[in-house]
Amino acid sequence: MGLEVFERLEDLRRWRAATDSSTGPSTVLVPTMGNLHTGHLALIEHARSIGDRVIASIFVNPTQFGPNEDYQRYPRTPAEDLDRLQRAGCDAVWMPDEETMYPAGPAGGFGVHVPAALADCLCGAHRPGHFDGVASVVMRLFWQVRPDHAVFGEKDWQQLVIIRALVREFSIPVAIESLPTVREPDGLAMSSRNRYLDENQRARAPELYRMLREAARQAAELQQEGVPPEAGTFEAIRRSVWMRLKASGFEPEYFEFRDQETLALEGQVDRVFAAARLGTARLIDNVAISRQNCR
Amino acid sequence: MGLEVFERLEDLRRWRAATDSSTGPSTVLVPTMGNLHTGHLALIEHARSIGDRVIASIFVNPTQFGPNEDYQRYPRTPAEDLDRLQRAGCDAVWMPDEETMYPAGPAGGFGVHVPAALADCLCGAHRPGHFDGVASVVMRLFWQVRPDHAVFGEKDWQQLVIIRALVREFSIPVAIESLPTVREPDGLAMSSRNRYLDENQRARAPELYRMLREAARQAAELQQEGVPPEAGTFEAIRRSVWMRLKASGFEPEYFEFRDQETLALEGQVDRVFAAARLGTARLIDNVAISRQNCR
Repeated sequence: MGLEVFERLEDLRRWRAATDSSTGPSTVLVPTMGNLHTGHLALIEHARSIGDRVIASIFVNPTQFGPNEDYQRYPRTPAEDLDRLQRAGCDAVWMPDEETMYPAGPAGGFGVHVPAALADCLCGAHRPGHFDGVASVVMRLFWQVRPDHAVFGEKDWQQLVIIRALVREFSIPVAIESLPTVREPDGLAMSSRNRYLDENQRARAPELYRMLREAARQAAELQQEGVPPEAGTFEAIRRSVWMRLKASGFEPEYFEFRDQETLALEGQVDRVFAAARLGTARLIDNVAISRQNCR
Repeated sequence: MGLEVFERLEDLRRWRAATDSSTGPSTVLVPTMGNLHTGHLALIEHARSIGDRVIASIFVNPTQFGPNEDYQRYPRTPAEDLDRLQRAGCDAVWMPDEETMYPAGPAGGFGVHVPAALADCLCGAHRPGHFDGVASVVMRLFWQVRPDHAVFGEKDWQQLVIIRALVREFSIPVAIESLPTVREPDGLAMSSRNRYLDENQRARAPELYRMLREAARQAAELQQEGVPPEAGTFEAIRRSVWMRLKASGFEPEYFEFRDQETLALEGQVDRVFAAARLGTARLIDNVAISRQNCR
């Protein structure tokens, strides 16, 4: 009944085959890059509520990191991760090595190409090739595990939109579920990269979420008044936020109002997205624009 | 017991789910673009010998045709195809429409990127993007049908090498089988594109196979004598063949000796590959270099 740990594809396949049937128990995958925090554990808990068996994957995926990004120093804490998964009631963990995931090497192999409309905006504009790398590893994980469901966090909202599109486009029989971002008491979105913040930066970090909430509230009010998203008022909010983030020591990458289903700038603009650097940490977050944001 | 024809994904899924179990009967997929000839029927027959249920797919895949290629005029003969599949003992046919295969449209959607080492030589050098299109549709077919085996013809040898690599790279649990090229009595490799040949061209078409056989025989003799593939003798064979093909009215695209596993020019050179235009038809073929080729 303990946590089963698989490092070889044949062992994973044996476990999976035991219930490989449309009438058998359902399998839920929670893909992670390890260094698990409370946000990940919430995904595991949700996974347990929707399926019979929960498998997490731990793989720091080289193809989704740019050449000047933090692949090398990304925190790797496998012993603590396994301990947390066990206590969270996870049934199995898939921990492939790089050769299993990329037999031809991470650079020389087959990739999945995400269309520009989804991949070239927001984080994709600042991390060229990032979402091709995400799609390439998720496609592999889905073939390796063949889950019935997969659960992703909503902090990486653009990733979630892209994975939903991937599944639709390739007719992948995996139901994608998402869970709202889990936050620290002061509002900071939980992330493995929060480790990069020093004490002073950590104290200022929740400002990103505060700005998103305030912008979402203002946007909701403007929308209630019938102001269209292309109006200068929205741009004025963005400029104001940008300056306030800079004043707090952030280096903003983007702060944008977009359609949360299509990521388009036009039409139904119902979510605010932000990314900003604080010291060596790159923080991302997003907040829905809804009537509830109006007070 | 007749042939089941599926045009909607949910109907295919229902059929597939009935035996979706690692212990249930095995399913073999034979992907085709329709206009079935004796070569395709040999694939169906082979499929019947290796699995319990055989499903063919018929889909003329737009993403593997270049802008100036024959997508529009590619022969479509669904009624005859269904009749032939039924008589060949095929169990089911998957005939998706374009929207099912490419929900975001063939141009705007997700693709699979084949590494240049496999995709940019031979046919790929003359058909940019062709193998990305092939990989993109095969990935979709594999998710839609989730076969245990899939059978491909060896005429499209480069395609076969790429699909084997695709399966390896993405850990796709599909066993890839291949079958030697089926030929007309005069040696011409069977192909839907042979229809494009007029009577005079059809009479000259087998020259491509004759040249391949002769080159393979000469190469085998040179190899027995220890001549390396980079020697000028191999180049002399290629030049001679090229001129003879031109004299017979062909417009050769390539005629190359390569490693049949990796498609590399170096190392174990054990297959000759050719493509040539004859009128409006583009013909491809290949022949193994082996001791049996020496007489």
